Amino acid sequence: MTITDQLVKFASAEVPQDAQIMMRLSLFDWAACGIAGATEPDFSDFVAAQLARGQGPATVFGGATAPAGTAALLNGTLSHALDYDDTHFAHIGHPSVAVIPAVLALAEEVDAPLNEVVEAATIGVEASILTGLWLGRGHYQIGYHQTATAGAFGATLGTARLLGLDPKEVRHALGLCASMASGLKAQFGTMGKPLNAGLAARTGVEATLWAQSGLTAAADGMAGPLGFGATHHSADEEVKPGKGQWHITTISHKFHACCHGLHAMLEAIGTQRLNDGEVTGIHIRTHPRWMSVCNIETPKTGLEAKFSYKQTAAMALLGHDTGATASYTDAICKDNAVRALRDKIRVSEDERIAETLSEVSVTMANGGLRRLRHDLLEPLSLEMRAEKLGVKAVSLVGDARADGLWQAAQGGDLRAFMAQLVMS
Amino acid sequence: MTITDQLVKFASAEVPQDAQIMMRLSLFDWAACGIAGATEPDFSDFVAAQLARGQGPATVFGGATAPAGTAALLNGTLSHALDYDDTHFAHIGHPSVAVIPAVLALAEEVDAPLNEVVEAATIGVEASILTGLWLGRGHYQIGYHQTATAGAFGATLGTARLLGLDPKEVRHALGLCASMASGLKAQFGTMGKPLNAGLAARTGVEATLWAQSGLTAAADGMAGPLGFGATHHSADEEVKPGKGQWHITTISHKFHACCHGLHAMLEAIGTQRLNDGEVTGIHIRTHPRWMSVCNIETPKTGLEAKFSYKQTAAMALLGHDTGATASYTDAICKDNAVRALRDKIRVSEDERIAETLSEVSVTMANGGLRRLRHDLLEPLSLEMRAEKLGVKAVSLVGDARADGLWQAAQGGDLRAFMAQLVMS
Repeated sequence: MTITDQLVKFASAEVPQDAQIMMRLSLFDWAACGIAGATEPDFSDFVAAQLARGQGPATVFGGATAPAGTAALLNGTLSHALDYDDTHFAHIGHPSVAVIPAVLALAEEVDAPLNEVVEAATIGVEASILTGLWLGRGHYQIGYHQTATAGAFGATLGTARLLGLDPKEVRHALGLCASMASGLKAQFGTMGKPLNAGLAARTGVEATLWAQSGLTAAADGMAGPLGFGATHHSADEEVKPGKGQWHITTISHKFHACCHGLHAMLEAIGTQRLNDGEVTGIHIRTHPRWMSVCNIETPKTGLEAKFSYKQTAAMALLGHDTGATASYTDAICKDNAVRALRDKIRVSEDERIAETLSEVSVTMANGGLRRLRHDLLEPLSLEMRAEKLGVKAVSLVGDARADGLWQAAQGGDLRAFMAQLVMS
Repeated sequence: MTITDQLVKFASAEVPQDAQIMMRLSLFDWAACGIAGATEPDFSDFVAAQLARGQGPATVFGGATAPAGTAALLNGTLSHALDYDDTHFAHIGHPSVAVIPAVLALAEEVDAPLNEVVEAATIGVEASILTGLWLGRGHYQIGYHQTATAGAFGATLGTARLLGLDPKEVRHALGLCASMASGLKAQFGTMGKPLNAGLAARTGVEATLWAQSGLTAAADGMAGPLGFGATHHSADEEVKPGKGQWHITTISHKFHACCHGLHAMLEAIGTQRLNDGEVTGIHIRTHPRWMSVCNIETPKTGLEAKFSYKQTAAMALLGHDTGATASYTDAICKDNAVRALRDKIRVSEDERIAETLSEVSVTMANGGLRRLRHDLLEPLSLEMRAEKLGVKAVSLVGDARADGLWQAAQGGDLRAFMAQLVMS
């Protein structure tokens, strides 16, 4: 069985409870990120221009409605605008921003209950992680934005599950997706990065709807001859959908409002507070994979700051709240204290350490040496995770709204949940 | 200067008259293909489903209107549905189906005169050929559908020219396109192939509109680090936009209603008529490039017939009109006379002969040998080309309509031209 055969079968898999519980946490977190992201002024002209080009039944962050494809595009983009949404390190992608907007947009059309949305989104997120694993590291390393590419396949399978496509239609939907899934890491640090997530979500909606309306496509668009794998540097790694613990149960949520590649380093720094005068040098060691992702040497904008080891390390050590989106400004890049500390930081790569791990060595002016380390895969209980996500949501959308969102995400009513996205 | 720098500059190039004359021939031919393609039942549910999801000002083949992106998607798909539109062999792609629908859809929004449409489409088609040359043969050979990938960049530059984007916006538009341009040869023989053309056209519309609405993207999304070239197997060949004779002046129009890889062989056969009893064997020699494109051994459907050396050679030799779309049916694949002759045909590849050339050797039952050959690059005068396109248009849309279309395509009035697309 190829990956296509496996995913066609997986579309109708039974979804375990622990996977669904994690999905509901991600749903809550995704919504908080999107509500906050929609208030960013950068995307407002783009959003307005899209909304002017078509009406429809699907809710968009901020309160407008649009056709399902447009809503998926906009909600995917806006929920990734802050780069604060969840990640899975097994395939280095952000699964929720591609899958959830696609499933929700079509769920509104068919008026599905929230538990079906959760099941479909779980299938979709799991499929995107499986696709990422199948593609392997080389795909990401050469320049593909896995959030967008693997994400599109996940969004396709999630929506196909929701609408109950038959196996032949699911196959065509995946085949169509193979011609549409795209997105480059070259966009990192530009508005093109969040857009990639939105495009993946739209691709999922369209591949599913178009297969349902009778479009045919390559029988094995993923692993077949001239297919997505052959063209997009897939390693064709073996995967086992639905076997054992689902990958979604080890998803990582972000507690710092910057690129996930920086989080192990920021968790290692933790509550350490140091200024320029106390330090002679700081050495950050990380996996080579991150060097092309989030190692901007001298960021000039708030957006670039989110992709910079030196900048975020200096901010954290000086006590700036790296969990607050408001901390990432153009001004903080020019701040004298931050720049002085930043200049003492060296970043180096080491293939022997895990991608989820970072080590920070601080040489003190008094001759001492502090060695800090953190691995993001260290277990985090569901209770602790929910608590940390709650604190994050309050910082993003305020106390009352975080509470309403939490209740709705745990419930069964799709309309009640969507209403939370558009409250002002 | 990278290809991106070159194309940004090329967006405002002066367009020579001979290039515009060829563009108007392609405009005429494209419209005839689209009008006929829109009557194919295969895509009707898909088209109806898209039209139900949004209203807008842009004309769709068949008479409906839609938002510009949707119109570009549908018109690109429908005009490639018969696989009868123009080709450029320098990059092995169909330039018009990606570029013209994109430029027309936005021209209707801004009410541009037809001569500006022709200039913008010429820039777009030339840009798609240049992009194809820059990507090189390896890109196509590994599995990318250049009509879709290079076509998306052409559609982007053509629409950017039409709307008068400034150089910075053109750069962002090409950067956005780098994340969206996609499409696989794995779709050949399915509805996904025409769809690829439509997707490229929509990508052009969206990349341009989105850059205009303020979206930023990679500064060099094509040739920069982690860009389209690095990820999509580009050979990074040197190109010289606007220098010397423009590539569009050597575009190939189709006079047989099947894959362009078969045309040199069909022109070589020409008016030869032979049946099973007269022949002991037929040997077709062609460039290796075509073996994965149009060498289906035993086609079962009319669509598959369009991608089969053996089938189309047998049809031509038996006197079936390969210029008529109606000749390609499921039934003709099962026809006893065709099958008997088909079984005597052998197809082999030879790297030493040009991609535009084919040789056909027929061993006669009476012991004779006929050696036939044709190169599609043999010059064709503009007058002869116009005459052959006229005959083709009459066979596609009928006498009166072909005439009206010809007049409108030579004129200056966009609305008069669009009216020809929707007449019933």
